[in-house]
Amino acid sequence: MILFDPTEHPHKRFNPLQDEWILVSPHRAKRPWQGQQEKTPADNRPDYDDTCYLCPGNIRANGIANPDYEDSYVFDNDFAALKNEIIAQPEVASTSFFKFQPEYGICRVVCFSPKHNLTIPEMEVSQLTKVVQTWIHEYRTLGAIEEINYVQIFENKGSIMGCSNPHPHGQIWAQHTLPTKVAKVATQLNAYFQKHQRTLLEDYLTEETNAEERIVVRNDFFTALVPYWATWPFETMIISNRAISNITEMTKEEQLAFAEILQQLTIKYDNLFETSFPYSAGIHQAPTDGKEHPEWHFHMHFYPPLLRSASVKKFMVGYEMLAESQRDITPERSAQLLREQSTIHYKKQRI
Amino acid sequence: MILFDPTEHPHKRFNPLQDEWILVSPHRAKRPWQGQQEKTPADNRPDYDDTCYLCPGNIRANGIANPDYEDSYVFDNDFAALKNEIIAQPEVASTSFFKFQPEYGICRVVCFSPKHNLTIPEMEVSQLTKVVQTWIHEYRTLGAIEEINYVQIFENKGSIMGCSNPHPHGQIWAQHTLPTKVAKVATQLNAYFQKHQRTLLEDYLTEETNAEERIVVRNDFFTALVPYWATWPFETMIISNRAISNITEMTKEEQLAFAEILQQLTIKYDNLFETSFPYSAGIHQAPTDGKEHPEWHFHMHFYPPLLRSASVKKFMVGYEMLAESQRDITPERSAQLLREQSTIHYKKQRI
Ligand SMILES: O=P(O)(O)O[C@H]1O[C@H](CO)[C@@H](O)[C@H](O)[C@H]1O
Ligand SMILES: O=P(O)(O)O[C@H]1O[C@H](CO)[C@@H](O)[C@H](O)[C@H]1O
Repeated sequence: MILFDPTEHPHKRFNPLQDEWILVSPHRAKRPWQGQQEKTPADNRPDYDDTCYLCPGNIRANGIANPDYEDSYVFDNDFAALKNEIIAQPEVASTSFFKFQPEYGICRVVCFSPKHNLTIPEMEVSQLTKVVQTWIHEYRTLGAIEEINYVQIFENKGSIMGCSNPHPHGQIWAQHTLPTKVAKVATQLNAYFQKHQRTLLEDYLTEETNAEERIVVRNDFFTALVPYWATWPFETMIISNRAISNITEMTKEEQLAFAEILQQLTIKYDNLFETSFPYSAGIHQAPTDGKEHPEWHFHMHFYPPLLRSASVKKFMVGYEMLAESQRDITPERSAQLLREQSTIHYKKQRI
Repeated sequence: MILFDPTEHPHKRFNPLQDEWILVSPHRAKRPWQGQQEKTPADNRPDYDDTCYLCPGNIRANGIANPDYEDSYVFDNDFAALKNEIIAQPEVASTSFFKFQPEYGICRVVCFSPKHNLTIPEMEVSQLTKVVQTWIHEYRTLGAIEEINYVQIFENKGSIMGCSNPHPHGQIWAQHTLPTKVAKVATQLNAYFQKHQRTLLEDYLTEETNAEERIVVRNDFFTALVPYWATWPFETMIISNRAISNITEMTKEEQLAFAEILQQLTIKYDNLFETSFPYSAGIHQAPTDGKEHPEWHFHMHFYPPLLRSASVKKFMVGYEMLAESQRDITPERSAQLLREQSTIHYKKQRI
């Protein structure tokens, strides 16, 4: 029998946030790639584009003109997936297999900056702090609405991630019910807290801080790391060092430190393949159901699709859709590659 | 208050196989699309390509030449994600957060035909019956191996689905443990069977047969439908009318009928946007752990990414990755669009 080597041998790792396993195949990183090549994003956008519906002063699909905003700007999504209308519970009852329920919600767009050609890694920390404050404001005000029990803040960056406009922006979907994956996390966090009287991520962070090898960047208030159970090749998570249950609990110092780590992590991403690094990112935090949630621990996930270069992504298909998530490169190796990147953006290094 | 209309209003539907909800936003199908356009696959492949590592007679990465095969041909994947080596359990114990286990398995490639330019919808039923018999043989022989407790048969079709070679082929990953999603399905099927002494899919099929509106195509032995809880725009499932737990239980008649419905469903897919319709597809069936599995009910999932045309796909990003799967078009409308398609392939209609 051969001795197990996690840098060489296929193995499974457990994700305690989703209560699931993922398959790691380190040796497979060597396989040649003859499949689809992704287009790399153009790098010559103007700072104002008169055809962009997010630029200041331009007119949106509903005929309304954007104000001449200076920092961030929030509006209701013109093509919202959720509707701000209370619908009567349907008369047709759910049967055993046709089980459904109407869903109520509000979808918003958050422009991060008036400048069409910026992205988070290219913004100043002072500007990013204003984005953080906008998220705080939205979480607080949307969460205060009686029917809204959960607020999902996220960003899709890059056309490869389904983003249809390169103007720096994110989205917020706020809704009545807890979405499936969030409900799963809630169950896991709650079970852990009941048992240990500490948050799951508090204890996880202690183990990761001792291990060191998956830490990418950190400051006094936040830690960015590649989770032990990461599924995407360069997946990371920013965790607050202190167990806060939601973004409104951040002190001024923490808001600044969060903006800083956001900037540093995304600069490292851009530097890795010298490209505007695509990802979906989003915050997991306590429901806004009016209850206390000491079990929740603020964190932000980054799910970037790129695998080997600016043009070769990881496909989560076939086996992954039917059976289990799978990765080639180990999380430890990914963390090392990201850690080694400079926190000065490659475009600024060139000047 | 407004009366609920499932063709207009956002709602959630429950997936009893995965024990999760998905968000349906029917009205959102109207939103304009300005994002990424997919390349449509070229339609002029030769029936033999001397650079293809799957064509008969050609030499593969490991230096071995493929035989001059006539129907299907199976070999061990040269870049396998799982390894056919028993690894000693590691000495380092799993901690509470660094939980892992070595995984053992065998990865195979199944060429469906020696002809480089065919795809399942373009193959004859007699040829597809041989593919079905190959799957039966592989499930039986791999499943008979002591260490193999689960056999995942699947196909990634199209470069948009991470397929790196257009030669018609699928894969088989056979392994020691039950993969995460399969384990979830197993739990659900088992709970249902314990309670009702019938399989979950048997009862589901009865409800769908009565409802009619999500059925795409059927014959005496199989039914293809858009599941009530489908997440991908044109997701379908082929279910055996009789509750068989795995593919080896198929009679000769059922093998033929399965080949027929495979062909008809995929022809409808190709006809929908007059393109070689990409998808990941795969069979869910009983584990090969040597136990009886009356709770399992053979079915095959099709997860195709296209949404509006041959070049616009659905992106499962942002909200979907962090919170919950989401779809725009209703499953009923998708089923209708597929049902309306001819079962004669568009290329043959042109002649
Ligand atoms: O094995 P292939 O075809 O090279 O690879 C493809 O299918 C695998 C199984 O679904 C995935 O893990 C890969 O991401 C995908 O590119
Ligand atoms: O709202 P957008 O940016 O048009 O759309 C994008 O993000 C949404 C939320 O993650 C997804 O549902 C869409 O598939 C994606 O294209």
